[in-house]
Amino acid sequence: MKQINIETVISFFKQLQDDICIQLEKADGQGKFVEDAWLREEGGGGRTRVLTDGAVIEQGGVNFSLVSGNKLPPSATAHRPELAGRTWQACGVSLVIHPKNPFIPTSHANVRFFIAEKAGEEPVWWFGGGFDLTPFYPFLDDIKHWHQTAHDLCAPFGENVYQEHKAWCDDYFYLKHRNETRGVGGLFFDDLNQWSFEQCFSYVKAVGNGFTDAYIPIMEKRKNTPFQDEHRQFQLYRRGRYVEFNLVFDRGTLFGLQSGGRTESILMSMPPLARWEYNYQPIEDSDEAELSQFLTPREWLTE
Amino acid sequence: MKQINIETVISFFKQLQDDICIQLEKADGQGKFVEDAWLREEGGGGRTRVLTDGAVIEQGGVNFSLVSGNKLPPSATAHRPELAGRTWQACGVSLVIHPKNPFIPTSHANVRFFIAEKAGEEPVWWFGGGFDLTPFYPFLDDIKHWHQTAHDLCAPFGENVYQEHKAWCDDYFYLKHRNETRGVGGLFFDDLNQWSFEQCFSYVKAVGNGFTDAYIPIMEKRKNTPFQDEHRQFQLYRRGRYVEFNLVFDRGTLFGLQSGGRTESILMSMPPLARWEYNYQPIEDSDEAELSQFLTPREWLTE
Repeated sequence: MKQINIETVISFFKQLQDDICIQLEKADGQGKFVEDAWLREEGGGGRTRVLTDGAVIEQGGVNFSLVSGNKLPPSATAHRPELAGRTWQACGVSLVIHPKNPFIPTSHANVRFFIAEKAGEEPVWWFGGGFDLTPFYPFLDDIKHWHQTAHDLCAPFGENVYQEHKAWCDDYFYLKHRNETRGVGGLFFDDLNQWSFEQCFSYVKAVGNGFTDAYIPIMEKRKNTPFQDEHRQFQLYRRGRYVEFNLVFDRGTLFGLQSGGRTESILMSMPPLARWEYNYQPIEDSDEAELSQFLTPREWLTE
Repeated sequence: MKQINIETVISFFKQLQDDICIQLEKADGQGKFVEDAWLREEGGGGRTRVLTDGAVIEQGGVNFSLVSGNKLPPSATAHRPELAGRTWQACGVSLVIHPKNPFIPTSHANVRFFIAEKAGEEPVWWFGGGFDLTPFYPFLDDIKHWHQTAHDLCAPFGENVYQEHKAWCDDYFYLKHRNETRGVGGLFFDDLNQWSFEQCFSYVKAVGNGFTDAYIPIMEKRKNTPFQDEHRQFQLYRRGRYVEFNLVFDRGTLFGLQSGGRTESILMSMPPLARWEYNYQPIEDSDEAELSQFLTPREWLTE
């Protein structure tokens, strides 16, 4: 029988959290992540790390969590009867960065692993994850760099991986009631188990490690661009859409809140400040108007 | 067969929208509601009225809408087979007021009517509505006035009406993931058709007209109270909870967004500005800490 060593996954995820925090602190140059370690009564716990009021990052959170249980809820086993009667563990790293400067996009990344076990039977497991970018101002070069990084890290895993996970990302981060994507996408995948465990794990490592390669150069490039209050106001307005997506559509957020997850860690993804304005319309041909052309699925690398 | 004249309901709702806007403008003393009339392709339309940057009201919206159709969606008829094959109309007034001064609570009110008809059969109809208050600072006198007004308008309709609709309100405006109510409640009811149409309509009129009696005295009383930035910051933080309720739990909001309603009118309830702060804890024994004692169901009138 195949042995799956979850400890190697946990160990990588913790290391990844450390690495990302160090790199983000370095890029910020001022802010420091503060850790809040917590335990979950039913099993497991986490390390929530939050950086506030940095030089570049207005608020950023990088979470590691490991949760486990002896029995999955009926909602989880209804469509997957093979999971009934199994113990389970889920772990992951999840992060959201809300920068101050409106010319730096907000970004999100996540890698996660789930395993359900039963003595004498093959374990059931899968990985999920991805990263996606939510710009406020349309800089095509930044988006190309983001997607090129995603493309290149996917390449060793198959020629369609980037296209498939890029399309999945566009599909997932979509606000139906606004008829727009949350941002310019990136990668999204779930239920990944069709390759060997080692191959899937390697891919997840590449995605997790790829986040900073994709994001930090954009932070560096835009962090000193001067901005006016009108840019800030537009950023706050667009952050409202981020809130709408996370609270209305994001399955992880809703599942977490409904299943009694740790609210403060889940809602660490919320922006530090957001605004709504009835029927806001950007000035024609402005940068703000042009953003809408970025909020629809596009083939960034061949444009 | 019983005739139900929806025109009298529509006419009252439009008049109510006018009255409330006039009274709120008077109480504000500066801001004016701007109307946006809209039509719905499938039938009906509305008058969205928004006041921004008033002297007292930071942002307020008072909507009237009337929507109709020839056929209800399967989701609506699944549990109510008697509605299948009927034409339907729904109309209502919905309002949310976000004041500037953190010592004035945010308030919400709604009255609505639904009717489904078929030639040769009794119409199926019901009313719904209520009003509820979301204070940022705990002033017991204000809450007592709010609930006394609710109590008194309910009294002519039966001795348990206030208690029942007050309990329904506490139950409905509840944030499970925060283990707190949205505010101090008020009245909430749905599917109201157990009395005669005339009696139900009279009650809805009393609730609709009662909103300004309940709210405006509190606006007047608190509008000139000086406040500091710390009070403002707490207000913005608490508005985050308002967003969480409306986007995660409010059935009207979610149904509207999912069913292709007019997004800008539905999300007029969002605050103009809101903030989130990881793991915020108020100072012990502060007014901010005391608020939590107001966010649990209480018998305000007998305390």
